[in-house]
This record gives sequence, C-alpha cells and structure tokens, in this order.
Amino acid sequence: MDLNEALTYVEPHLKKARFDHTIRVVETAVQLTGLHGGNQKKAELAGAFHDYAKYRPTEELKRWILKENLPKDLLSFHYELWHGPVGSILVEREYGITDAEIKFAIRYHTTGRDNMSQLEKMIFLADYIEPGRNFPGVDKVREVAQTNLNEACLMALQNTIPFLMSKNQRIYPDTFYAYNFFMKLHDHEQEERGNG
Amino acid sequence: MDLNEALTYVEPHLKKARFDHTIRVVETAVQLTGLHGGNQKKAELAGAFHDYAKYRPTEELKRWILKENLPKDLLSFHYELWHGPVGSILVEREYGITDAEIKFAIRYHTTGRDNMSQLEKMIFLADYIEPGRNFPGVDKVREVAQTNLNEACLMALQNTIPFLMSKNQRIYPDTFYAYNFFMKLHDHEQEERGNG
Repeated sequence: MDLNEALTYVEPHLKKARFDHTIRVVETAVQLTGLHGGNQKKAELAGAFHDYAKYRPTEELKRWILKENLPKDLLSFHYELWHGPVGSILVEREYGITDAEIKFAIRYHTTGRDNMSQLEKMIFLADYIEPGRNFPGVDKVREVAQTNLNEACLMALQNTIPFLMSKNQRIYPDTFYAYNFFMKLHDHEQEERGNG
Repeated sequence: MDLNEALTYVEPHLKKARFDHTIRVVETAVQLTGLHGGNQKKAELAGAFHDYAKYRPTEELKRWILKENLPKDLLSFHYELWHGPVGSILVEREYGITDAEIKFAIRYHTTGRDNMSQLEKMIFLADYIEPGRNFPGVDKVREVAQTNLNEACLMALQNTIPFLMSKNQRIYPDTFYAYNFFMKLHDHEQEERGNG
C-alpha cells in the first residue's frame, strides 16, 4: 500500500479538518525521518492511519477494546485515548496492515509509552508539532525536534502532563511511563556529555 | 510509646531545622485528625518518625533498600525518595513499631501511592502544608485541607508533579498513581454532587 492509497482509505472516515491534520502529520513525520533516520514508507502509513478510528462512536470503540486484546483499564480514562489502540486493530482487520511497528505507532500516538520505538516517537511528535498546531510552547518543541527527537518528545510530555492535570484529567499510566523513559534518556545524554 | 518519648528518640537523628519541621508536622497532623477523624496517637507517632531516616548516608539507605523487602526500582529515582521507605523499616527494628498503618504513613509520606489510607493522607498532607512551608500555592492547599482532605492531597500533587517535571526530575510511579487515585475520588465526588 502506498501513501496515496492509504489516504484514499482514510479520507472518508475523517472530517475535513482532521484529514488536513493527517496530511500534515504525514509530512511532518516524513520530514523527521529525513532528519533522524527511519523508514519513510512506514512513517507515511502510520501517519496516514494514526487517527483512522477518531470518529468511530465511543460505544463502538468500547466494544473493540472489550473484544480485542486491548487493556481494559483504558475504559476508566478519557475516551480520547481509545482511538489509537482501536485504530491499530482496525488497520489490520480492514486493510491487512500487520507490521508491528506501524501498528504500535498508531496505538501509542496519543499516550506514548515506555521504550517507544523510533517510529512511535516520530508519529507521537509529528502529531504534536505539525504546522497546524498552535499552543504555548509548541514552537520551542518544533525547534528542538529538528535536532533531538528524544528531547522534543520529553518537552511535549512536560507540556502535556501539567496541562492535563490543570484540566483535572486522569493521566493514563503509559503517558507517565513515557515521561520517565524520555527523562532517563535525557539524564543519560547529560551524563555522556559530562563525561565526554 | 507516647509522643514525647518518640520525639526524644527522633531528635538526635535530625538537624535542628528538620526537628522543628517534624514538630510542626505532628501538630498539623493532629489538627487534621481533629477535623477529619482518625487516630490521634497514630498521627503523632507517624508524624514524629516520618523523617527519621532523613540524614542516614545515602549508601546506608541503599543498603537497607537492597537488604529489606523494598522496591529496588527506588534506586533509579532520586535519593530523596529513599528515607520514607527505609524509615518505615527502621522504626520497627529500632523501636518495635509494628503498626502497619503507621509504617505505611512513614513509608509513603514523600511519594504518596494508590489507595492511600486516612493516616497516609494526613501525614503526606501535613508534611506539605505545615506552617513552615512557603511556596506558591501552599496557602490554597492549607485552606482546602480544612474541609476536604482528598481534594487538598490532589492539589498538592497537581503542584508537585509539574514542579518536579519543570526541574527535569523523574517521577516515582507511586506518585503518578496517587494523582490518579485522588483524581478518581474527585470525579466521584463531583458525580455524587451532580446526582445529589
């Protein structure tokens, strides 16, 4: 499946603004792949499908979570967290995408997680910094993303977690684990520089 | 053991300012017990001993964590988190305090955790709001603590976690679980009010 075919499948499932966002996520992910290395074709497909399940009714999302091998504790958290995991199931069932890297990048694009792969980081970050995004701190993350993928993901989480807390939202544990993961990478990088 | 005896044991192990803080934590915990119910004697002992291990050398703290049944992952986090768990071991070994509630209140006073008991909340919060504490937001937490223990703990975590993140500190998972625990209690309380 190439990018155009993927977008043809995705477009009818998204509102216009969300589809435009999807295009920008693909472009940003491809750009990040150019800068930091990685498989461009996988970045295109993961980007194209990352929000595929976004507009499924919450009752349908819930049914998929209960039916498939997805963590049931998702249901105690905001439904906004459900479309990633469900999307990763649907792309396999409906389009035969079995590649684990692509599926994980779709699955964890909202929450992040511990030990994220390069592709997961790319989609997580592209979703956060694509040029249509406009919120306090995003320009700084965009800037850092040009040179340091891990540090940019850390900054995104350092913005997002306090923001969600200020909105009285529960935080899905994977998001906390992602923060500690990138903080650990940050510490190791600092140590290497200190010793270098 | 009464409060005076406990303080006699604790005093030689703390610097003057830390001992004064301990006294204020006891007083605050006793005041919170008066407002919200709970066992005053346990609040006194837990308050008196909460920082008992604070000035043990980090190498000694590390030895206790490795030797006793304490989570080894503590060692990947800031040593500031070690004195609570180690203190909860030492008070039993050195003073025969076996009460699980008191030991848990000492153990989790810095990190918090999921499903905190009333006594754990009291010591966690007293440590945060005792009158010697002076940082942005503490007055609001003090005010809320007079009427709603859970909400005050939530606010403390909503201050502390973003603060630690802004300082590039890793966050111990129990602290995240504590946040989600109090956020869940907050949501339930809101629902009850909405339905009431």
